[in-house]
Amino acid sequence: MPSKHSYTDKEKAAVYKAMAERRDMRHFTNEPVDVDVFNRILNAAHMAPSVGLMQPWRFIRIADPNIRVEISKIVDKEREETAKALNERKDEFLKLKVEGVLQCAELLVAALPDKREKHIFGRRTLPQMDMASLSCAIQNMWLAARVEGIGMGWVSLFDPQALASLLKMPKDSLPIAILCLGQVDIFYEKPMLVQENWAKERALEGLISTDYWSNKF
Amino acid sequence: MPSKHSYTDKEKAAVYKAMAERRDMRHFTNEPVDVDVFNRILNAAHMAPSVGLMQPWRFIRIADPNIRVEISKIVDKEREETAKALNERKDEFLKLKVEGVLQCAELLVAALPDKREKHIFGRRTLPQMDMASLSCAIQNMWLAARVEGIGMGWVSLFDPQALASLLKMPKDSLPIAILCLGQVDIFYEKPMLVQENWAKERALEGLISTDYWSNKF
Repeated sequence: MPSKHSYTDKEKAAVYKAMAERRDMRHFTNEPVDVDVFNRILNAAHMAPSVGLMQPWRFIRIADPNIRVEISKIVDKEREETAKALNERKDEFLKLKVEGVLQCAELLVAALPDKREKHIFGRRTLPQMDMASLSCAIQNMWLAARVEGIGMGWVSLFDPQALASLLKMPKDSLPIAILCLGQVDIFYEKPMLVQENWAKERALEGLISTDYWSNKF
Repeated sequence: MPSKHSYTDKEKAAVYKAMAERRDMRHFTNEPVDVDVFNRILNAAHMAPSVGLMQPWRFIRIADPNIRVEISKIVDKEREETAKALNERKDEFLKLKVEGVLQCAELLVAALPDKREKHIFGRRTLPQMDMASLSCAIQNMWLAARVEGIGMGWVSLFDPQALASLLKMPKDSLPIAILCLGQVDIFYEKPMLVQENWAKERALEGLISTDYWSNKF
């Protein structure tokens, strides 16, 4: 029997569909994103949970084309560094282009603020809970973007110090995402890394155990 | 004009409603959670994005009541330590009871696996992206639980080493969440910390800037 608080079957289906069809997008058209749609996506971030209600999300919208170019250079530099670190997978990796930063209609940098150390509630032994809260906010954005028909990509290929310096961020703040948002021709049918045969997905069954850690993990 | 990939208005409304009504729950009834519902919630986790497709989520379902009691002791210990660290807010803090661990129908520990260092893609400069991916998975679970009418709470008041030891987890793995799932009488109208006047929410406008960091942050 469903819970008395359960949504309708249609509502449930919509939420599960958004989760299933959400993709980390890298290819965008040059069409703009409607301002109301953009605001709803940001509002979705702001509806996320946060440890001790610290709301550790700060968003810098990049409007200046010169700053965007500088950001793309920071991403390209890290792409090369990562390719070197991956060694034998270098060629494959370089095929996965990080062009979204230049193509997308809206570019955002999501960052953790400084002065986070004063937030102790729920973070004394797990200070990384601030990162967890911001990540929940970004997942909300991803789902909101998908239902609005907008593609979103989370780029983590960058040197945080270089990006923080470019955006005049204070010491102890930390940029954790370059978010690309824009119209797309198609949403990838599968995650791009799967489509490109770069990685295979594991089945859920192998990731759940009972009472203790499992060797199958 | 909406994107050609936009969902219907009703579908969009369902997704935004789930985000708005999702709560970090601490109070549960003693009714069970349907096994199909439970599996759909776990499946929602598995639909999350992950950096380099590493799928860094491992879930340990706690079936043994003795282990549950041991987990509640670990949480209680950290509650006291946190209360001490909070000093003047100690009394207020102690009112916020972490009883969900013992009350809830289903108790899960979510953890990052060991051997994460081999995953370099998207993590060379931001190794904490594994935590980000697991957090996105947990946000999916939270939304899935809400549409199923099930309450979920993320408890981060614990010593990760103590919990890892209890669950026989390998060195370099890391438990990051004790997840309580269960039926609830009501979903809180506002986040519990707001209802209890423990914290106030900030408006989104104060958390967005253009091109550079803002002093208002």
